[in-house]
Amino acid sequence: MTTGYLGPRGTFCQAALLRTLDDPAADVRPMPSVDAALSAVRSGELDAAMVPIENSVEGGVPATMDALGSGSPLQVVAEALLPVTFVLAARPGTALADVRRVGSHPHGWAQCRGWVAAHLPGAAYVPAVSTAAAAEALSLPGEPPHDAALCAPIAAETFGLDVLARDVGDTAGAVTRFLLVTRPGPPPARTGADRTSVVVFQADDHPGGLLELLEQFATRGINLTRIESRPTGDALGRYCFSIDADGHVDDARMGEALTGLHRTCTEVRFLGSYPRADAAAGEVPASTSDAAYADAAAWLRDVRGR
Amino acid sequence: MTTGYLGPRGTFCQAALLRTLDDPAADVRPMPSVDAALSAVRSGELDAAMVPIENSVEGGVPATMDALGSGSPLQVVAEALLPVTFVLAARPGTALADVRRVGSHPHGWAQCRGWVAAHLPGAAYVPAVSTAAAAEALSLPGEPPHDAALCAPIAAETFGLDVLARDVGDTAGAVTRFLLVTRPGPPPARTGADRTSVVVFQADDHPGGLLELLEQFATRGINLTRIESRPTGDALGRYCFSIDADGHVDDARMGEALTGLHRTCTEVRFLGSYPRADAAAGEVPASTSDAAYADAAAWLRDVRGR
Amino acid sequence: MTTGYLGPRGTFCQAALLRTLDDPAADVRPMPSVDAALSAVRSGELDAAMVPIENSVEGGVPATMDALGSGSPLQVVAEALLPVTFVLAARPGTALADVRRVGSHPHGWAQCRGWVAAHLPGAAYVPAVSTAAAAEALSLPGEPPHDAALCAPIAAETFGLDVLARDVGDTAGAVTRFLLVTRPGPPPARTGADRTSVVVFQADDHPGGLLELLEQFATRGINLTRIESRPTGDALGRYCFSIDADGHVDDARMGEALTGLHRTCTEVRFLGSYPRADAAAGEVPASTSDAAYADAAAWLRDVRGR
Amino acid sequence: MTTGYLGPRGTFCQAALLRTLDDPAADVRPMPSVDAALSAVRSGELDAAMVPIENSVEGGVPATMDALGSGSPLQVVAEALLPVTFVLAARPGTALADVRRVGSHPHGWAQCRGWVAAHLPGAAYVPAVSTAAAAEALSLPGEPPHDAALCAPIAAETFGLDVLARDVGDTAGAVTRFLLVTRPGPPPARTGADRTSVVVFQADDHPGGLLELLEQFATRGINLTRIESRPTGDALGRYCFSIDADGHVDDARMGEALTGLHRTCTEVRFLGSYPRADAAAGEVPASTSDAAYADAAAWLRDVRGR
Repeated sequence: MTTGYLGPRGTFCQAALLRTLDDPAADVRPMPSVDAALSAVRSGELDAAMVPIENSVEGGVPATMDALGSGSPLQVVAEALLPVTFVLAARPGTALADVRRVGSHPHGWAQCRGWVAAHLPGAAYVPAVSTAAAAEALSLPGEPPHDAALCAPIAAETFGLDVLARDVGDTAGAVTRFLLVTRPGPPPARTGADRTSVVVFQADDHPGGLLELLEQFATRGINLTRIESRPTGDALGRYCFSIDADGHVDDARMGEALTGLHRTCTEVRFLGSYPRADAAAGEVPASTSDAAYADAAAWLRDVRGR
Repeated sequence: MTTGYLGPRGTFCQAALLRTLDDPAADVRPMPSVDAALSAVRSGELDAAMVPIENSVEGGVPATMDALGSGSPLQVVAEALLPVTFVLAARPGTALADVRRVGSHPHGWAQCRGWVAAHLPGAAYVPAVSTAAAAEALSLPGEPPHDAALCAPIAAETFGLDVLARDVGDTAGAVTRFLLVTRPGPPPARTGADRTSVVVFQADDHPGGLLELLEQFATRGINLTRIESRPTGDALGRYCFSIDADGHVDDARMGEALTGLHRTCTEVRFLGSYPRADAAAGEVPASTSDAAYADAAAWLRDVRGR
Repeated sequence: MTTGYLGPRGTFCQAALLRTLDDPAADVRPMPSVDAALSAVRSGELDAAMVPIENSVEGGVPATMDALGSGSPLQVVAEALLPVTFVLAARPGTALADVRRVGSHPHGWAQCRGWVAAHLPGAAYVPAVSTAAAAEALSLPGEPPHDAALCAPIAAETFGLDVLARDVGDTAGAVTRFLLVTRPGPPPARTGADRTSVVVFQADDHPGGLLELLEQFATRGINLTRIESRPTGDALGRYCFSIDADGHVDDARMGEALTGLHRTCTEVRFLGSYPRADAAAGEVPASTSDAAYADAAAWLRDVRGR
Repeated sequence: MTTGYLGPRGTFCQAALLRTLDDPAADVRPMPSVDAALSAVRSGELDAAMVPIENSVEGGVPATMDALGSGSPLQVVAEALLPVTFVLAARPGTALADVRRVGSHPHGWAQCRGWVAAHLPGAAYVPAVSTAAAAEALSLPGEPPHDAALCAPIAAETFGLDVLARDVGDTAGAVTRFLLVTRPGPPPARTGADRTSVVVFQADDHPGGLLELLEQFATRGINLTRIESRPTGDALGRYCFSIDADGHVDDARMGEALTGLHRTCTEVRFLGSYPRADAAAGEVPASTSDAAYADAAAWLRDVRGR
């Protein structure tokens, strides 16, 4: 099995994949973009790809939402949660006092601004295309574009850098969620602590349309853990919704909610049901348990046929 | 087949039953009360009974709602709509000018008050237990309690009275709806213009409880044609709801709404699905047609099993 | 001050009025019907009238709902709750074993049927226009229509009858609620445990109309204690709603809910705000307290004007 | 008046600002980031700044939403809509056949990928920090990082480049919306075709919380034109909502909706009411017009005080 991740080497995404696979011999490959990773899954070049879907500070990852919401169907089979901990890494021998230029991806820079202001007040920011690229630049021969990089611990390790400071992120507890994506197949078995992901396109953008969509979940006691609007690309004000909900497609309540969406929306793209990384089973109202659905179905058969 | 109706002879209810049976040789029997009529159906003494359920002026008939909502199950198999037209009837030979005392049931009196004020300004009202009883009293030997009766045309005919004036009701277009009730059995086949009756007992009387109940119908595009609260008898503020809705229990949307009620309410008493007397098929949103439900179910099977 | 009640003398309604007035010298008059009582208030003949609005066993009183919901405006200024306790009363000297015919209003008979079946198994029922009339008939000279009456304790006392048995009602805890009605004027001051009564006519009978009406209350955290549909008289399926809600018209949340109804409905008939007889203050969500409304209004003024 | 825009020179944002100011002598300054632009407004260095808020292809601009939703208050006073039309620009003398490396911001690249695949099949992509920076790089002395840039027409003009091809974007009709932001002050006067922007933080993340938020708008007939969730930064699953709605804070219905949010949410950050760039007045239900609110308020005063 060949698995890709959003590269370059040294990203949080690589760390999430390695932790999920838990196999030192796994064949894992960095991919240059989310689009490239998911295209490689679609084409069969990869069996699976790990991509970021949301971050507790930065929010949803548009490239992932959009790539999953269009093109040929894909399936989410697992998720991973990774704490985002930044280190300040530099070439071996560099002292903190030597750091005048700091390289990182703008998101990385944004998340460490407070620490930098306090500890490197005069430092200049040098943008890089990723935090890992900022680290890698320090490992290449020649004059580097910056003196130190704000990056993931795995990047410092990957590129043989010294860690000048740990936990330099301003937001303690920041976490990124990743999805493991394959071609469509039977969903992973229900564990009782599952999540279901869908993308929903509404029939039109009438006032109250989103409200009706949410009611399909709410009236079945289903908790949404993420909802983001994404433009359909047609015009301003036209959206689809990228949604994560507690529960499995095999749950009766989820089946009824999804068929309700299917009846009332233009398109429901089912992305998958998979175990929650935190194994937290949400509370289900007694009235929407599988048992309640089974009872009600038996009662209906009775009154229809008696 | 032996059928009863809310008597005495000469009631609108008898007229509704005769029209529905459309059989001059039918064995029809007056019953002294709604309770008595439905008890006789339960015991097997009658095969069916016609009872009033609502009137466009007087509202719902509590005795019928309560008798259907408690005790052993019964089933509504047909409905009838009868215009309420009152006549002023008297013993043969009576002139309008002779009428000083007018007998009727209080409801009949209430519905003709305007006419009486205009045409019999000095007349006194004499209460009777039914409009038909007021008519019958004029056919019995001895001194009658009143000079004329406000009653149904069928009552004047039944008791051999003269009609002094026709259409003396104040509300043109008043109509009463009647239900034909049997012991439980398979519901009448779906016609496409059907009505379903239920009594719903809520789990508790939390604020918004009625709202949730109504949403079970509204989110499936089901129109309610009648809703009345009835006390459960436990305490003030404790209600059940007597509901008529457009559609048949065999409609997918109705099945889903009823199972939704079954899951969330203490008790749902299914009273029956039967053809609307006016054969008016309500409009069904495309998203809640049987075809939409079938499509959605097929899609769900696919995403669950692929 | 002259006050009427739904007569005849000896009714529960008289008892409710005397308890409310708490004045032995009060000028109270029996009225022959709810309509007559409220007409006398409208005309100025009475200053106020006590009428029944609902019973925990029999439900709402249509005559009262309809009379308050049409005609010139009236105002509810107080309510009373009276336990419904029946006695079996007879002429002095009568023994229980002598009772062969029992007189009462059909509601009274219905509420004591179990006791009669157990203690007077062979007794015949003789209908009367009210429970008090059944009692009064025993106090008149001549042959009475029945041997004993099922009536209120006050009726036995009023007409000098012996009580053969107390608490003969089948439903322990049955209670009737009465309203004291005057001509319109400033509502009674807010006590913190108030009730507000309205009659609401909807603009049309579209599906979901009742739901929208209920949302006006629910979104402001207002609990409904009674809701009944009443026909408008135009046609089957056309209703207005008679509603009691926790709170006072001077509460900000009630003001917003009522103006919401006023904006979206054909007519809102405000019947009054008055102290709850049980002095029970319902729980109000913090977000709909007067303080929350005042804060929000101050904030809005600020963002509008800054 | 000194105004900033999201730079560098040559961006769509500059074009939007110049069109809005319509003053050739205006003092406009490029700012390195949205954060920098809005900080300069907060500090008084700038009087106003134009920043992008959403794009019909790429969606909302997180940096803008986040900067407006935290820190000291700012106010939106105008919006601008700009069609996104890309050109392929190069140093004078360059022929299309010479182009082997194409520079642009990743978003620009993503939006022109189809055209490039068709017309420059072998071309390599060179990332730049903005489309304008890609254009500017071609105007600097020395070896440029790429042979041509995908950029806005204004960028080609600004940097003296030749346009090799026009309208090379794959999505015809793509448009970006910009906001003109100042320090807080009285909102621009109501025009009848206005938009209101808010950021709403919910009290907790209970199921149905978003639904309640949306109902504050829906029950007042207010159409939402944009809704996006943004993480609060505390944890995954904690969101605030960035919302644009039709109407002005001085509209009665908007005032009631906003106070409803203020009562039920932790924080409502009012960002402003301003004229819609397209001057399109949405339809307002009669029941939520200012006239309906005024009528209802007068009625309430009457029933409270009569």
